[in-house]
Amino acid sequence: MFLKNCWYHAGWDFEVTLAHDALVTRRIAGESLVLYRKPNGAVVAMEDRCPHRQAALSLGRKEGDALRCMYHGMKFAPDGKCIEIPGQTRIPEQACAHVYPVVERNNCIWVWMGEREKADPALICSAVPLRDSPWHMLPGKMHVKANYRLEIANLADLSHLAWVHERTLGGSTRYAEVSPKFEITPRGLNTRFWVRSVPVQAAVAHLFPPGAHVDVYFEIQHTVPCNWILHHRVFAPGTAADDCSGGELLFETWTCQYVTPRDEDSIDYYYCWGPRHEQNLPGLSEMLRDTAEAAFIEDKLVLEAQHARIKEKPHYPQISAAFDAGPGRMLWVLDNLLKAEAGESTAHLS
Amino acid sequence: MFLKNCWYHAGWDFEVTLAHDALVTRRIAGESLVLYRKPNGAVVAMEDRCPHRQAALSLGRKEGDALRCMYHGMKFAPDGKCIEIPGQTRIPEQACAHVYPVVERNNCIWVWMGEREKADPALICSAVPLRDSPWHMLPGKMHVKANYRLEIANLADLSHLAWVHERTLGGSTRYAEVSPKFEITPRGLNTRFWVRSVPVQAAVAHLFPPGAHVDVYFEIQHTVPCNWILHHRVFAPGTAADDCSGGELLFETWTCQYVTPRDEDSIDYYYCWGPRHEQNLPGLSEMLRDTAEAAFIEDKLVLEAQHARIKEKPHYPQISAAFDAGPGRMLWVLDNLLKAEAGESTAHLS
Amino acid sequence: MFLKNCWYHAGWDFEVTLAHDALVTRRIAGESLVLYRKPNGAVVAMEDRCPHRQAALSLGRKEGDALRCMYHGMKFAPDGKCIEIPGQTRIPEQACAHVYPVVERNNCIWVWMGEREKADPALICSAVPLRDSPWHMLPGKMHVKANYRLEIANLADLSHLAWVHERTLGGSTRYAEVSPKFEITPRGLNTRFWVRSVPVQAAVAHLFPPGAHVDVYFEIQHTVPCNWILHHRVFAPGTAADDCSGGELLFETWTCQYVTPRDEDSIDYYYCWGPRHEQNLPGLSEMLRDTAEAAFIEDKLVLEAQHARIKEKPHYPQISAAFDAGPGRMLWVLDNLLKAEAGESTAHLS
Repeated sequence: MFLKNCWYHAGWDFEVTLAHDALVTRRIAGESLVLYRKPNGAVVAMEDRCPHRQAALSLGRKEGDALRCMYHGMKFAPDGKCIEIPGQTRIPEQACAHVYPVVERNNCIWVWMGEREKADPALICSAVPLRDSPWHMLPGKMHVKANYRLEIANLADLSHLAWVHERTLGGSTRYAEVSPKFEITPRGLNTRFWVRSVPVQAAVAHLFPPGAHVDVYFEIQHTVPCNWILHHRVFAPGTAADDCSGGELLFETWTCQYVTPRDEDSIDYYYCWGPRHEQNLPGLSEMLRDTAEAAFIEDKLVLEAQHARIKEKPHYPQISAAFDAGPGRMLWVLDNLLKAEAGESTAHLS
Repeated sequence: MFLKNCWYHAGWDFEVTLAHDALVTRRIAGESLVLYRKPNGAVVAMEDRCPHRQAALSLGRKEGDALRCMYHGMKFAPDGKCIEIPGQTRIPEQACAHVYPVVERNNCIWVWMGEREKADPALICSAVPLRDSPWHMLPGKMHVKANYRLEIANLADLSHLAWVHERTLGGSTRYAEVSPKFEITPRGLNTRFWVRSVPVQAAVAHLFPPGAHVDVYFEIQHTVPCNWILHHRVFAPGTAADDCSGGELLFETWTCQYVTPRDEDSIDYYYCWGPRHEQNLPGLSEMLRDTAEAAFIEDKLVLEAQHARIKEKPHYPQISAAFDAGPGRMLWVLDNLLKAEAGESTAHLS
Repeated sequence: MFLKNCWYHAGWDFEVTLAHDALVTRRIAGESLVLYRKPNGAVVAMEDRCPHRQAALSLGRKEGDALRCMYHGMKFAPDGKCIEIPGQTRIPEQACAHVYPVVERNNCIWVWMGEREKADPALICSAVPLRDSPWHMLPGKMHVKANYRLEIANLADLSHLAWVHERTLGGSTRYAEVSPKFEITPRGLNTRFWVRSVPVQAAVAHLFPPGAHVDVYFEIQHTVPCNWILHHRVFAPGTAADDCSGGELLFETWTCQYVTPRDEDSIDYYYCWGPRHEQNLPGLSEMLRDTAEAAFIEDKLVLEAQHARIKEKPHYPQISAAFDAGPGRMLWVLDNLLKAEAGESTAHLS
């Protein structure tokens, strides 16, 4: 089950070019889409399905603002309306491809999968862009064969840094002992926590003196479906108050991670990570990007195996633990929104 | 759903040899078959299924006219009757493999999938043979992962030459403007149309002066399940009357195309194409065969994507266009025959 | 459907090592397992499923006797009980991974898939070990995509030596003419038969004078689910009485074959074969192992094709033959045990 009235990350801006043949396909929340840029650069997101007999429009041809289906030549304006049917002059009103609201913001392409009139750009998560910002972000992308709820649970509980990412992002069981502060928002969950006097994270430990310890502050905005923005600050131990004041800042990064379900069994994972431009030592951004990729492969292995086990026994009882606090809250927010949406469609029907 | 009382193209004659181990498997209309030649050359089409415990007879051994299952040694005569059960003398009457009527004609092997007593060879489509005819035909074969109804719709409407085959068989939107003459037959559809003053088809344009235009006449016999015979004639523009009389013939070919469904999700596509022997310039037949293959790969891409989209949304509404006239008629013929067959089986039951 | 109260062959002993990261996965009778050795060498067989959220324990870490899930760090004792939940002190009683009874015997690891209190080691089949015995056995393993009932039928009727193994284990239609003596046991079938004056088996014929004939005596213990132990003796023709007395023994081997269903559509096949140490000519054991492998690939081809055909037509009528006597008896034993088990679970429910 997917939230429809929701902005989904449909790719990085550079993935959809102005090139003539560039028709990009996506599977988002169970729907097949084709994305292209109009000559003025604006992105169009159309259902990848000709209303005639379901030929794939992504095998078609850009003609100015329009997209021509290259099976029988029907041509669609960027609002989805058919504007040409070869061999006839009459164009039936239903000859219309479905078009999705699109916003391009922070170098991400956001697609709204639900009712057009509810597509409020203010609901797009506030992310750090790839370019033209104080932060030097490098992007990446990965495909994971797991349900997106498993990704939500993964990202809403960083105690797994201690175990899954022992040799990359973690390196200490201290990550499994934190008690985060949660704030439920209308469409997500904010999470903050300190990890005090913890060994430097495994992947960057070689940049510090042997045995170095630090205080780390995590501030996370998590919004539906599963967009996750982390402000990550590393301080000299014992220098920072709980509100970070007075802290000797050693290292500061942002990472933005976007999980877009293709279907019930797989997701696309988009991510970027980076330090301030003025703190970007040669090779540092690349190292962070490579570390992210290594760590997300660790997650991928765990989540794909978990997904396979859940498919084997969908009704297996589960037990709960303290570290489920974050996942529980975030899934509760999602489920409430899903229920509200189901209620509205029922109301429409009655 | 497949028509049972129908001749299906089960392969080219040369695919089934007299060699000792040559047991050819086919999946036709949802059934698994094994084909072999008897010492006298005649082809046998047996269900690829031992009546004992469903071992594959195609892993068996030819012994004279008979086929021995090489799991437990049961031996079947070419009429399917078991003639030996190792270790016992009694042979139960039900020990019988299913055998299908076969006709070898025009270098094609035709198999009847329905009731034996209705297997009338007069129902086989009239095709151009590969050998011993005035035409120099070269054969080919392709597998397409699409339902055969999509192939029917593809072949019954050549407006797609304008779009799918823009760079091979087409090259002009004029193909999308024709109004064919249709004649519904008891088991198919005959279609005739002129395309007047059209640029030479893309794949052969280099053989004509730049910018050359021609008049092209298409005459097609399309029969169930989906056998499609085209007589294709190219005239100097303005020379031929509607009945072709007086025309200055520049180029004349036949092509025979046979679509055999394996199951609901895939088909085997057999085809041949060729000019008259006396017009067969060196390399011409090969070029036509290569052009056909290139064009059928274009179709394959379109139809496989369309099939995938239809699987996603089987009940998606569809809109109709003028160019659906041919597909609509041919599918109407098929559906009537399917209904008649379903009615007969219901009658048998009551 | 699988028998639960039953010992399944889960692998050769050497497959599960004491190495730190050695966590071996198995799929047995529809369940996912992880196997590991404790520091004292004893094997643990745990369900490969963390009770928290079904993460795969096989991606975890051995810690002494225990296994830690490396998703959230929960740690399980070898009896399945959770002994640590990071971040909390309370451990709920249900925090328990399922653990299966294991016995290591004759270099095989045996796992009991049913009720722990019924796991009687006396029910393990009496096999020839790989080491420390008078027999020089070499082991092998193969995966077959077929239901285990087809393997039962295959092993319970050696008439197929005449056909499937014509060029390996057979070489004469005499194998299809035997009338075995059957003895039904509480959990299986014992089978004995002579094949008198038969050409030497194909794979070893080159070790005998051309045209040599022998008398062969087969003694087989077949037990559920599908463990199959053959004592195979070859005598100079006409020298041995029916009880083998007085026989001039030319060749004597044992082979043990264990079929473990993964699920309804595939099995793991474990096997070993060998002569007496004192009769083991250089290269002989290796030749027997290679012959077994060649022969089991012959079976694999036949059974996988048969399985595919049965999936196409699950309700196809079948006819019976004299050579079904063994398979019929062994499947009858299995079905009775399956029915008894189903009855017991029904009784539990009422």
